[in-house]
Amino acid sequence: MIETPSLVDQYCHGVLRTELGLGTFEAHLGRGEGPPAPGTTFFDTQTGFAVRRWCPPLLGIEPHCPPARYLARRRELGVLESGRRLLRGSGITTYLVDTGLPGDLTGPGEMASAGAADAREIVRLELLAEQVADTSGTADSFLANLAESVHAAAAGAVAFTSVAGERHPLALAPEPPGPGEVRGAVGRWLTGRQVGGVLADPVLLRHLLWIAVASGRPLQLHAGAGDPQTYFGEFARATAGLGTDLVLLHGYPYHRSAAHLAAVFPHVYADLGPALVRTGARAAAVLAEILELAPFGKLLFSSGAHGLPELHVVGAHLFREALGRVLGTWVAEGAWSLTDAQRVAGLIAAGNARRVYGLPVGSDGREP
Amino acid sequence: MIETPSLVDQYCHGVLRTELGLGTFEAHLGRGEGPPAPGTTFFDTQTGFAVRRWCPPLLGIEPHCPPARYLARRRELGVLESGRRLLRGSGITTYLVDTGLPGDLTGPGEMASAGAADAREIVRLELLAEQVADTSGTADSFLANLAESVHAAAAGAVAFTSVAGERHPLALAPEPPGPGEVRGAVGRWLTGRQVGGVLADPVLLRHLLWIAVASGRPLQLHAGAGDPQTYFGEFARATAGLGTDLVLLHGYPYHRSAAHLAAVFPHVYADLGPALVRTGARAAAVLAEILELAPFGKLLFSSGAHGLPELHVVGAHLFREALGRVLGTWVAEGAWSLTDAQRVAGLIAAGNARRVYGLPVGSDGREP
Amino acid sequence: MIETPSLVDQYCHGVLRTELGLGTFEAHLGRGEGPPAPGTTFFDTQTGFAVRRWCPPLLGIEPHCPPARYLARRRELGVLESGRRLLRGSGITTYLVDTGLPGDLTGPGEMASAGAADAREIVRLELLAEQVADTSGTADSFLANLAESVHAAAAGAVAFTSVAGERHPLALAPEPPGPGEVRGAVGRWLTGRQVGGVLADPVLLRHLLWIAVASGRPLQLHAGAGDPQTYFGEFARATAGLGTDLVLLHGYPYHRSAAHLAAVFPHVYADLGPALVRTGARAAAVLAEILELAPFGKLLFSSGAHGLPELHVVGAHLFREALGRVLGTWVAEGAWSLTDAQRVAGLIAAGNARRVYGLPVGSDGREP
Repeated sequence: MIETPSLVDQYCHGVLRTELGLGTFEAHLGRGEGPPAPGTTFFDTQTGFAVRRWCPPLLGIEPHCPPARYLARRRELGVLESGRRLLRGSGITTYLVDTGLPGDLTGPGEMASAGAADAREIVRLELLAEQVADTSGTADSFLANLAESVHAAAAGAVAFTSVAGERHPLALAPEPPGPGEVRGAVGRWLTGRQVGGVLADPVLLRHLLWIAVASGRPLQLHAGAGDPQTYFGEFARATAGLGTDLVLLHGYPYHRSAAHLAAVFPHVYADLGPALVRTGARAAAVLAEILELAPFGKLLFSSGAHGLPELHVVGAHLFREALGRVLGTWVAEGAWSLTDAQRVAGLIAAGNARRVYGLPVGSDGREP
Repeated sequence: MIETPSLVDQYCHGVLRTELGLGTFEAHLGRGEGPPAPGTTFFDTQTGFAVRRWCPPLLGIEPHCPPARYLARRRELGVLESGRRLLRGSGITTYLVDTGLPGDLTGPGEMASAGAADAREIVRLELLAEQVADTSGTADSFLANLAESVHAAAAGAVAFTSVAGERHPLALAPEPPGPGEVRGAVGRWLTGRQVGGVLADPVLLRHLLWIAVASGRPLQLHAGAGDPQTYFGEFARATAGLGTDLVLLHGYPYHRSAAHLAAVFPHVYADLGPALVRTGARAAAVLAEILELAPFGKLLFSSGAHGLPELHVVGAHLFREALGRVLGTWVAEGAWSLTDAQRVAGLIAAGNARRVYGLPVGSDGREP
Repeated sequence: MIETPSLVDQYCHGVLRTELGLGTFEAHLGRGEGPPAPGTTFFDTQTGFAVRRWCPPLLGIEPHCPPARYLARRRELGVLESGRRLLRGSGITTYLVDTGLPGDLTGPGEMASAGAADAREIVRLELLAEQVADTSGTADSFLANLAESVHAAAAGAVAFTSVAGERHPLALAPEPPGPGEVRGAVGRWLTGRQVGGVLADPVLLRHLLWIAVASGRPLQLHAGAGDPQTYFGEFARATAGLGTDLVLLHGYPYHRSAAHLAAVFPHVYADLGPALVRTGARAAAVLAEILELAPFGKLLFSSGAHGLPELHVVGAHLFREALGRVLGTWVAEGAWSLTDAQRVAGLIAAGNARRVYGLPVGSDGREP
């Protein structure tokens, strides 16, 4: 048997502090630009079925029970108690928490105490820049404050994350913008901006990425649209050898391309959480595809969970089951040795994340 | 056991009325731009092997017999009788038939009586426009007649279909062309056109798509070249909320991207037939990949069959076997409940199509 | 059981003549633009694990032993003897060897004698052009010498190969450049060039490809970046019917698109070696994906091996095991007949290559 006693969730968000009804719960199962189609429900997805498989038993009821019954039991226990039971039942020993999404979400400290685990903060670059813009009067003060904020964040946070690739296709151009270009873009952005306005200017997004690259902290990049081989290769080539690791998030369904990039560039890593959470009963098949090209030291577990502790549970359970099944099959076929399989399982579950993010071994109170 | 008593083939064509020799039969197994390479045959494909597996027993001979023996038996029975046996042996209870391809093909009425099934018509937009052009003298009369023809077709047909994405990469631009632009393009097209001339102008293709979107009937779109995330996302975003459903046809080998789009946009659906017919022994594996991201209410069975009733048979048999195997495995593993699996099987086989196309429940003479 | 007594490796390189240490051996397992990341090793890849599975027993030690033990045994036997044991243990009966890579590599003659097999030469077009440039003073003499060299090479070599698609995205434009364009490009290239300078000019690469197409010898094309459907379809369409076969190399992870192109164009073939060598324990899964769309007469085995005879071994063993497992499963399920499966196995292992490259049947001393 392949075992993974420690589990570092290298990318997730906090959970909602409020009680949820059937509709608000369902909304967090979808990934779409709108409600479910008429006559359909987001419960009828792999994620929905996986939640109904793994979570009811942690709240003391039978798996695959109807959504309404599950939600009733969840409210009966209350959001705090059900959250504690779920997070503690996930088996995750360290949470790396992106605190950059809006909403009434728990922070790293609350995740740690609810989950009886360790937790660290990941800082979202775009939110940082927007907060700096809210309090900076001029382009010069914005640029000085931004550099200072990134520097300060790098001291406390375990990593940076960015959605630049989602916000503008040109944000990942393979060189930093020039100082004059940046100053002009800042001026235009601040002039037109209301407090809280979102950063989507490609020049500023690029500037932000290159400041982060200079910080030396690992930089987690959300995938943009389409195959990352077409938009990420040049950025990877341009940042090779600078001493900052890049972690590609949300590669699925281009996970084989993400794995290829992790094989080609020494400083590029691939994440696998959401690919598993979204594909549910297919998690083992998808994990096996990622394990084709990705060197085993370049792959990192995460849940990508947001809002619902059920998603942390599903991410962790699917991952452990999939990993055990895939590696166990290869051992049974004679393709891998058991020793190698156990070692690789430990790397993907926790060891690679500890090395990349500089987490102390055993910081989660367990043997490595 | 997962059962699917009803089967709505949501996209297919009629079958040839003439007797076929070995060469003409083989030609319908290929999908290529030319004959088989020297020394090879289209029978040596997954489709060819699947035909030899499923069809001979329906004509009373052994599976996997040589092609020449199968064709001899087919001629012995005659094209009508073999067609009846094959279509009735497919298990399809409703055919939605695209009548827009050339050739001596049976229409919906003949498909219904040969197959002892229900049948409805799908209207191909490009053919409609070409027919209107054949009888319109001026740009103004063309545009008026086209609007009227689409309106009339919408009343009788179950859906529209379009190959605009195949004919021109710009046909799926995310907004309708302006009236002046359309009028100019019509003028140029009509001036240079012979009777029967094909519509490939990107402005007119766009105009046609947006008229169809306004009609409210479901619109089936043939995939263009490459990954639909790169050319279809903006069109989907632009047509969201207008009340017309879009069905992506022929997604394979980009079926995961098609499934992703069906998950993101409430009005987008994914088709799975040709992916199964072309991949034969791999149909279960391909179906499982589509079931990763596609919400279970957004997936529609079809055969995509054209010309040979053998292809309707193969599409239906591969689908039922693949669905039973994939969902049955998930039930056996505990990932899904049996109740859920049976319900989802019914949705993909017939229920989703009934809802999307407004087919009366039980119109095919069976319990839903 | 599916058997493949003959194995034609339709694309590989020679092996290194020098003894290798742990680091130099490891470097040949990676495919990256740099060394392994700190804290990782290229042995922790599917290729590394596959080498440790298949090769130690051929040198008389246990599978999955540590890399250092394997390398010690290899040095104990010496590079010549270990190479002989490995190549003869691969089961490959004919090697087609691309002689166009730098380094102290064995040629076809040495491969044949070390491996007790047949061997033929594949000529790399870019190297040929660079060698002609080294000895041509003027644009006119370069062009005349180039035409003559390609013509002479076509007489002796079994095929041409080109990395034009890797060197410049425009090299596969669907028509030959005009004579004036070519002469201008030659002049600029020769003027700026040092002896040994690499050919990367898109006009000259195009010119070179079209000379090769005119030669009638099969042309093996290395994949460029991204999905070949987006950059190769037009070139295939433009060269259809000219009488020269095109073989797509290195399609993975776009192997389904490569298989699709082999299905669409009569003169296009798909290679499958490196996809298997790089994916190791997943070779059967990847092979099954390629077998979805590729007509069975259009698929060619290769190892793609370079430098290490271990890679020839791994390519051949993974292929035979994967083929046996995939086809054997389909036979067991009733999807294929055993007769068909054995025939298709023989085609992919050797028969298709014999037909495409005009190799005499039984030239490898075995029954076909």
